Amino acid sequence: MSPFLEETGRLLSSLRERKPRIHCLTNSVAQKFTADGLSALGAHPSMTQNVEEVAAFAASADALLVNLGTLEEARRAAIPVALDAIEPMGKPWTLDPVHCERSPVRLAFARELVARGPAVLRGNRAEMALLGNGPPGTVSVTTGPVDRLQDGERTLSILNGDPLMTQVTATGCLAGALIAAFLTVSEDRMTGAGAALLFYGVCAEIAAQEARGPGSFAAALFDALANVTPRDIIERGRVET
Amino acid sequence: MSPFLEETGRLLSSLRERKPRIHCLTNSVAQKFTADGLSALGAHPSMTQNVEEVAAFAASADALLVNLGTLEEARRAAIPVALDAIEPMGKPWTLDPVHCERSPVRLAFARELVARGPAVLRGNRAEMALLGNGPPGTVSVTTGPVDRLQDGERTLSILNGDPLMTQVTATGCLAGALIAAFLTVSEDRMTGAGAALLFYGVCAEIAAQEARGPGSFAAALFDALANVTPRDIIERGRVET
Amino acid sequence: MSPFLEETGRLLSSLRERKPRIHCLTNSVAQKFTADGLSALGAHPSMTQNVEEVAAFAASADALLVNLGTLEEARRAAIPVALDAIEPMGKPWTLDPVHCERSPVRLAFARELVARGPAVLRGNRAEMALLGNGPPGTVSVTTGPVDRLQDGERTLSILNGDPLMTQVTATGCLAGALIAAFLTVSEDRMTGAGAALLFYGVCAEIAAQEARGPGSFAAALFDALANVTPRDIIERGRVET
Repeated sequence: MSPFLEETGRLLSSLRERKPRIHCLTNSVAQKFTADGLSALGAHPSMTQNVEEVAAFAASADALLVNLGTLEEARRAAIPVALDAIEPMGKPWTLDPVHCERSPVRLAFARELVARGPAVLRGNRAEMALLGNGPPGTVSVTTGPVDRLQDGERTLSILNGDPLMTQVTATGCLAGALIAAFLTVSEDRMTGAGAALLFYGVCAEIAAQEARGPGSFAAALFDALANVTPRDIIERGRVET
Repeated sequence: MSPFLEETGRLLSSLRERKPRIHCLTNSVAQKFTADGLSALGAHPSMTQNVEEVAAFAASADALLVNLGTLEEARRAAIPVALDAIEPMGKPWTLDPVHCERSPVRLAFARELVARGPAVLRGNRAEMALLGNGPPGTVSVTTGPVDRLQDGERTLSILNGDPLMTQVTATGCLAGALIAAFLTVSEDRMTGAGAALLFYGVCAEIAAQEARGPGSFAAALFDALANVTPRDIIERGRVET
Repeated sequence: MSPFLEETGRLLSSLRERKPRIHCLTNSVAQKFTADGLSALGAHPSMTQNVEEVAAFAASADALLVNLGTLEEARRAAIPVALDAIEPMGKPWTLDPVHCERSPVRLAFARELVARGPAVLRGNRAEMALLGNGPPGTVSVTTGPVDRLQDGERTLSILNGDPLMTQVTATGCLAGALIAAFLTVSEDRMTGAGAALLFYGVCAEIAAQEARGPGSFAAALFDALANVTPRDIIERGRVET
């Protein structure tokens, strides 16, 4: 058994005990799903994109998620303000450049943000192909049937998950939020990001066992986010280093 | 048995028969959950925040909900316009100052609104501690494991509910919308607000009985909002005056 | 048996194989529900309303949905830009004038859009009574307990569906999105729109069989959107021409 499975279990327990605040600058489609996923896990989500408020919210949170889906003007203005607030405090932020392959404007903005050095950059294959790896210190994560992580020195692959995730909108966005949450309990970014995806993949497999389709799967997924134990992760986790 | 349980059952029946229109100026995270909760109960929700439209929507609704979560600029502009439209008509409005403890800007705006005298002011302990009670005539509601209501003369506590509510985002926001709905069938604001929270708490307990976690709980909660009867309220309701 | 039932089954299979991209300019309440419905069916939804991005997204999609619920200023600006992008390409678009009877501003905008000739105009009875039928070439659809379609020459009625749909917000909005999706696989607009509503009505009936209320119904509806087969449609479909 990989010691990474045990470490993931420890981080999960730590997260449920610490109940960190995660501020999410995420797309309008994914907001409720993301907040519910974090709440099921025991974390405290907040979501405002108001440029007058976002510095206060981000500064009093433990981590930040920046997601570029449905890039509303208000969010675009709020993102740099939130980053200016947390960067001097050393708080970790995760970047999810959703659909940057569909819009030149969004791609250019995503590149600017990558250059600011997120703790973790998470995209699917099309998005990551355009953005390349992040700067030194950023963990690059390409999610898909297998999730692949690398930080320039180490690589890690997570094999857990279920195809039903592709039939529920915002499951990818929630992955980014879970990474943001696990970064609050892990000193090592690679370990934190990998633990989040391993935990999420195990949750998805357990949810899929009782699901009859994407609707019952989504409900079962939130149940699993609340109920999956370190033992479940050790019994089911499949990783490659 | 408290006569309040019977009165709540009567108000519930009246609400399902009358099917009032509730206009909700609520945060983007809670919109669908709030609309679904009202629809399950048989009410008709509307949600626009467009400043050009909101007066027409609010004026043709039976009650208004003002929720300050994720306070978008458009909503902030729409709120006073909606209030100007309904105040001369004497329609009740409910204020939910979500997370006003996290942002000075939001707190200042919440205070302005409290001064306009909502029928009901509903917050959690942190929010209500900052805002204090509303002006005379406003019912102040502090929700939590026990919901406490007071109007300066009377007090009422609702003991029903379930801890799973804290693992589903927007359950608190829906409480505000249910209060807004019950105000359309009760002459007495204290009774209307208390009946909404008693009904909601009983729904949550029934939903929790069959839930395996927050995902299945959320689905069961909407089922309960549609199915709970006056008899369920009388059998399960727990209040203290 | 009507040959229309078999044709609907063929279009459903074709849709699941082709997995079209549907760009949805839809209201904030319905976004996630709409995206989930399309994803359950195997289509790829996108949702941005950013005026700088919307032309690129709409031009790379196979069809467009324009829904006027909660008509945010940003969406109002994005709609003509998206239409300008797709009209020269001959891509079909569907118009859903949600609640245009509640706001003079929205009604005026809906009338402008109807004049641009959507492939399909879908509304409930109150909305369609105000808008009348679309211009020649537009299929007009009035949804309700029975869905009625007409294109000036032909009429079609779909009898499938379930009353639980009225207790879940955005089921009507999803109907518009499913019409948009079926238009990508049908040369004939009347057939495409009718097939979408027939499929949806059969899904609703199957979902209602196992539902205990609107919450479990919504989950079962997404399961059905993924699982209903051409055979289910042939066995259960009820249409009148």
